[in-house]
Amino acid sequence: MAPPRQINIAVIGAGGVGSCFLSQLAWLAKNQKSTRLSLCYIATIDGALYSQDYADINIETALPTLEAKGYALPSVAETIEYLAGAPHKVILVDNTSSGAIAEAYPEFLRRGVSIITPNKKAFSGSYELWQDIFSAAQSGGSMVYHESSVGAGMPVISTLKELVQTGDEVTRIEGVFSGTMSFLFNQFSPTTGQAGKWSETVKKAKELGYTEPDPRDDLNGLDVARKLTILGRLAGLPIESPASFPVQSLIPEELNNCATRFEFLSRLHEFDDRMENKKYLAKKAGKVLRYVGSIEMGTRNVKVGMEMFDPTHAIAALKGSDNIISFYTKRYGEMPLTIRGAGAGGDVTAMGVTGDLLKILCQMS
Amino acid sequence: MAPPRQINIAVIGAGGVGSCFLSQLAWLAKNQKSTRLSLCYIATIDGALYSQDYADINIETALPTLEAKGYALPSVAETIEYLAGAPHKVILVDNTSSGAIAEAYPEFLRRGVSIITPNKKAFSGSYELWQDIFSAAQSGGSMVYHESSVGAGMPVISTLKELVQTGDEVTRIEGVFSGTMSFLFNQFSPTTGQAGKWSETVKKAKELGYTEPDPRDDLNGLDVARKLTILGRLAGLPIESPASFPVQSLIPEELNNCATRFEFLSRLHEFDDRMENKKYLAKKAGKVLRYVGSIEMGTRNVKVGMEMFDPTHAIAALKGSDNIISFYTKRYGEMPLTIRGAGAGGDVTAMGVTGDLLKILCQMS
Repeated sequence: MAPPRQINIAVIGAGGVGSCFLSQLAWLAKNQKSTRLSLCYIATIDGALYSQDYADINIETALPTLEAKGYALPSVAETIEYLAGAPHKVILVDNTSSGAIAEAYPEFLRRGVSIITPNKKAFSGSYELWQDIFSAAQSGGSMVYHESSVGAGMPVISTLKELVQTGDEVTRIEGVFSGTMSFLFNQFSPTTGQAGKWSETVKKAKELGYTEPDPRDDLNGLDVARKLTILGRLAGLPIESPASFPVQSLIPEELNNCATRFEFLSRLHEFDDRMENKKYLAKKAGKVLRYVGSIEMGTRNVKVGMEMFDPTHAIAALKGSDNIISFYTKRYGEMPLTIRGAGAGGDVTAMGVTGDLLKILCQMS
Repeated sequence: MAPPRQINIAVIGAGGVGSCFLSQLAWLAKNQKSTRLSLCYIATIDGALYSQDYADINIETALPTLEAKGYALPSVAETIEYLAGAPHKVILVDNTSSGAIAEAYPEFLRRGVSIITPNKKAFSGSYELWQDIFSAAQSGGSMVYHESSVGAGMPVISTLKELVQTGDEVTRIEGVFSGTMSFLFNQFSPTTGQAGKWSETVKKAKELGYTEPDPRDDLNGLDVARKLTILGRLAGLPIESPASFPVQSLIPEELNNCATRFEFLSRLHEFDDRMENKKYLAKKAGKVLRYVGSIEMGTRNVKVGMEMFDPTHAIAALKGSDNIISFYTKRYGEMPLTIRGAGAGGDVTAMGVTGDLLKILCQMS
């Protein structure tokens, strides 16, 4: 039997998703028979661990070693040079949300380094960067996968790609794309029973860890807008940026200039009446409020914001912090293909990354 | 630029799924830049079209040509010899539900012919055949994909495989796996409003084309049992056959020996009280009836039959003839990863086949 081929893996980022990915990579490296997965580079914001002879780094002790020794962090340009010179094919796993690394994807790809990432930045930045990424992959013979950039580990991007690549016609995409927004509206506007005030709901979500450290990063809708940008582009719309379609921010205009999140949170209750009124109008119509994103392919209408739903609608019936994404297509007809489940969390997001790694390994000869 | 590589495609079956697949293949052959997809063999129950020099068959005129000329159908053994001798890599697409062809998969695979199929027979037959199929693929350097054998074009099998291959632990699989059963119970036991008698519901489903020509082929539960067998095995249970776990048949024992489907349908109303009583018991508990399959991985408990669900449960809220499949896993925690949509129909089933074709093309060097 031939010895197993070897693939070099480079990992950037060891936060919530990154540390879960490292556990999954360690498991995979042990359980992959046909490929030797060799970690040759690992970097966090504090430094990087790698050697000029691309020697194997022990996956399980990589982080503690890096933390203990405090190695210097090379520049992005140096990282590209290093990885492009590796003796085997290289896959870079970017588990950060860094814009600077995202900007460098085309250069990595052009130099033959494949990329896997949950980082939304590159795919929801300018349309020029989007085009540059995919043409760089083509010219570099490299691959780029980003399943976890929408819906974490759920098969959202792979499903949309397959619909398009098999010749189906996507007519509409609709869903709840943010675990935070899901939790907030499932609590604030439940299908049955009573609910608290909006500002209290936001504070509760923050206490339970369902929001970003600064809840305004969820409430501004940008995260959802980025995901819609990615799905719209994959479906064939040349969306210029997440700023090129209407996105409803849930930050009251009067609080746009709060200096700190603490000031924001302490003043949010002043505007509870507005949200209460919206919920009242929905209730009067026998409906509930949800924060959704939608793409109408025919009219090229993309939008993000609050909408009213019948309580029996799958979007209204969502629970916890689940995401739901529905693809309406010509083949599926009136009833969409729907995927529902956790759209955030370290382990499930890392699973999307690991799944992408398996897809690339299958294709690497 | 190098000329595109060529792959030989062989297709068996041109019924509801097969004819839709041929349309999708024609579209794909035109839109695939990197691979020339060359149809070298097409067969229906009436005959086969192929030539000893493996010349391209025009995909769009293949069926009418075959029908007009009435070529003889070679034996399965002859087909294997023919395809194993092709000048390029070969993918056999089996769009039949034939048991005989399913039995021959190991031989095709051992001879290097890859297989794609919506045919459940091979994967839900004996566990020995299941093992033989996958070891034959390994020894023959061939691939076998069968996404459409469960949930038609929905990403059910690929998702389950990815959960397992990335190291997640599946704890429970549950769902409505039959479009017919979905329609019957959504009508007979709705979450709101009144409903007709069971026998009337069955007749209505038959008239609308939601059942097999003989509704007993749906009501016996075997189709669901086959799908459960496939998912259970993929999740790691060595299920011996669809007969090795409890499957509730909805054919009253007294009608087991009806000579014809007409006799069966004309007598079904005699047993309406039984189903009415089951629905009454569910209603008294504030629930609805659904026909589901479930797999408990821990206890290895697999079962298929009627169960009661709270009206707010996603399984109760199903509409039309949609399928729903939920994966409970260690990583996803209490809330499952759920996929919902059309689980039958020519175009969506063929799309699963075409999607598998794309997956194999990606991996063929």
